[in-house]
Amino acid sequence: MEPSSGSRDARPAVTLVAVVLPAGGSGERLGGATPKQFCAVQGRPLISYTVRAMERISWICDIIVVVSPENVETMKSIIEKYGHKRVTVVKGGITRHRSIFNGLKVFAESELSNHLLQKPEIVIIHDAVRPFVEEDILSKVVMAAKEYGAAGAIRPLVSTVIASAADGCLDHSLERARYRASEMPQAFLFDIIYKAYQQCTDYDLDYGTECLHLALKYCETNAKLVEGPADLWKVTYKRDLYAAESIIKDNLSQEVCVITDVKEAVAQVGFHFHESLKSQMKVEAISVSLSKIDSHLQSIFSGQCYNFVCVNDKKYAIEETQQLVDMLEKSNTPLLNPVVLILVQLDISEKVSFNIGMEELTWIKKFAREVKKKNILVYGLFINIESDHLLLQETVNSAAALIMALIKDRNPALIGQLLVA
Amino acid sequence: MEPSSGSRDARPAVTLVAVVLPAGGSGERLGGATPKQFCAVQGRPLISYTVRAMERISWICDIIVVVSPENVETMKSIIEKYGHKRVTVVKGGITRHRSIFNGLKVFAESELSNHLLQKPEIVIIHDAVRPFVEEDILSKVVMAAKEYGAAGAIRPLVSTVIASAADGCLDHSLERARYRASEMPQAFLFDIIYKAYQQCTDYDLDYGTECLHLALKYCETNAKLVEGPADLWKVTYKRDLYAAESIIKDNLSQEVCVITDVKEAVAQVGFHFHESLKSQMKVEAISVSLSKIDSHLQSIFSGQCYNFVCVNDKKYAIEETQQLVDMLEKSNTPLLNPVVLILVQLDISEKVSFNIGMEELTWIKKFAREVKKKNILVYGLFINIESDHLLLQETVNSAAALIMALIKDRNPALIGQLLVA
Repeated sequence: MEPSSGSRDARPAVTLVAVVLPAGGSGERLGGATPKQFCAVQGRPLISYTVRAMERISWICDIIVVVSPENVETMKSIIEKYGHKRVTVVKGGITRHRSIFNGLKVFAESELSNHLLQKPEIVIIHDAVRPFVEEDILSKVVMAAKEYGAAGAIRPLVSTVIASAADGCLDHSLERARYRASEMPQAFLFDIIYKAYQQCTDYDLDYGTECLHLALKYCETNAKLVEGPADLWKVTYKRDLYAAESIIKDNLSQEVCVITDVKEAVAQVGFHFHESLKSQMKVEAISVSLSKIDSHLQSIFSGQCYNFVCVNDKKYAIEETQQLVDMLEKSNTPLLNPVVLILVQLDISEKVSFNIGMEELTWIKKFAREVKKKNILVYGLFINIESDHLLLQETVNSAAALIMALIKDRNPALIGQLLVA
Repeated sequence: MEPSSGSRDARPAVTLVAVVLPAGGSGERLGGATPKQFCAVQGRPLISYTVRAMERISWICDIIVVVSPENVETMKSIIEKYGHKRVTVVKGGITRHRSIFNGLKVFAESELSNHLLQKPEIVIIHDAVRPFVEEDILSKVVMAAKEYGAAGAIRPLVSTVIASAADGCLDHSLERARYRASEMPQAFLFDIIYKAYQQCTDYDLDYGTECLHLALKYCETNAKLVEGPADLWKVTYKRDLYAAESIIKDNLSQEVCVITDVKEAVAQVGFHFHESLKSQMKVEAISVSLSKIDSHLQSIFSGQCYNFVCVNDKKYAIEETQQLVDMLEKSNTPLLNPVVLILVQLDISEKVSFNIGMEELTWIKKFAREVKKKNILVYGLFINIESDHLLLQETVNSAAALIMALIKDRNPALIGQLLVA
């Protein structure tokens, strides 16, 4: 799910790297009361995704999150709830530049923090509302900053940029090819950007937004511009939150672990599932007696798989299901992202007619409500196995389509429902 | 759902207005094989949404869609399938400017079209991939174009714009407040923009993209800049398609029509539904004997409501349900957008235990598969009515949450499932 990080290739040849994340914005463009960095995406505040994107990179030593004074406690509780490490929360100023300056001060002045953090060689400045930043671009800007003193990610312009005259009419259009959008992350030799902030005017601190500009103006450092990927975009409007949610759901739907009981009839259906699902996502298939969860399964649970399908022929595999849930919880997998657990019940009795009873419906609903508190979304799926091979294949395909839909949607409103393939 | 259009206030005081929609782009930034204007959103190509946005405005006489030669037939079949009116398909050139020029020529030269269309006073130029354009901004640019000769929508810049030097380093940043992003729609006196295209160089036709710039360069017309809303944004990347899909789903989930049978017990539950749903969306509630669909219901069916909940106490209200579907189909409502139809079955028998039988499950699945072909998504919802008032309220709330989730998701994979509240 998350790209490998801290690999030898991507680690820049720099001793100490820290990150400053200004997160003091009010989010007025989003049109909501909650600043966008605190908006929930799949139940988790956006800023937690950005912090996680930094935190998983082993060569980043300190993450400084700068929030407005009224959000310090909120931010601290987010860090605690999601178990973030290496994060220091700092009170911001009234503008973006003043907030970044406050963030930098924790490495140079002891007044703003209980303990002075070790001064980094390079500091990355990133936005709290750009959660999809990858190690590759971070490494690139850090290496360029080491060489040039400053560096920043850029992107092609999506729209033509124009200058308006005083009367509100077009003065001139800029030639699109000559200009770029300045994005984040940016990186600086700490001494350069700190000096720039120390020297800059109140006007700059109040009305400027661009760190590269300060490095140029006060330290004659022409930043190296690094072409960044499209997913660096900044969550600005409500539509960006929608896009972020879809991307995160997509990322969580890359892999599924199918656990089938070793009994022959069940194992056969498990095989068909595997075939039907693997055209759409990576499938990790395991045959295991559910009463004996093995070490292979343990290792998947502590990995980055967020989707589990458990195929069984018992109507109430209560004990085994509870055991699975306990293991998932212990693995910390559901801490950051909701885990989907689909309980597939096979009816291999080959009866022509069947019924689903109230007792069963009530149990799965109650169980799902309980487990939801642990950030695990449980759904039921009932399959009536046909002995006819063609019909079996059709039923399995229909079941696979339902499983895909449940995984991709991760809809908490549908937990505890028993679908029928 | 769709804003009222052609109202007296918004209609600009202009005789003839036409629209040119360049749609020849290859969509390479989207990273897919299908050009973004033809990507399906809720099953319908994006360009159909943009055409619809124009078509619903009564004062727009002609809509010229310019597509690359290989997509002419695709575009014509889209127009036929979705019943678009007043649209002419024109073959584009190899660049955006050449395509727009071709689009303008159908009003001035007879060679490109079977019949010469009547020359408009004002022509709007818009992007095929900006589907959320509203009458208000169209009317504003048209009125400004009448006064100034040219006009275009602008937006504040999201990122700072920078110029790079030959060595790939920062040359200078632009002061963000002085510049704007030039967006669409733009509008022109036809004679001005047509003259600009006739006079402009091959270089302009091949490398330029900005119509306002041509009007300035060749006709000394300084376009009036009009601040546009945030939803004018251009679908450029895959994330924009995700955002568009979510916005469209949101727009389709504004209103629900609850149809309850007149029988006393059913009507009571219908009332609770109404109360529970109306905090989240507009609810149109109707009590009607399902065997006698009345004229009020007819009028809702031909309106812009895309969600229907049908509350009944019969297990198989097959005939009545079929009648509802036929009426929906006849109203043309499902032509442009998928309609959600939730069949709520009340069990008022007050039995402690109940079963859902295979016969019922099979029927609703088969029925849903049939009706899906008509772009109607059918879901079942089973409610076991408790005589206890508190429990009834809880059950109804749970049912309302499921109804909301089904409406907001419009998930075609879940059709024919019988959920239990």
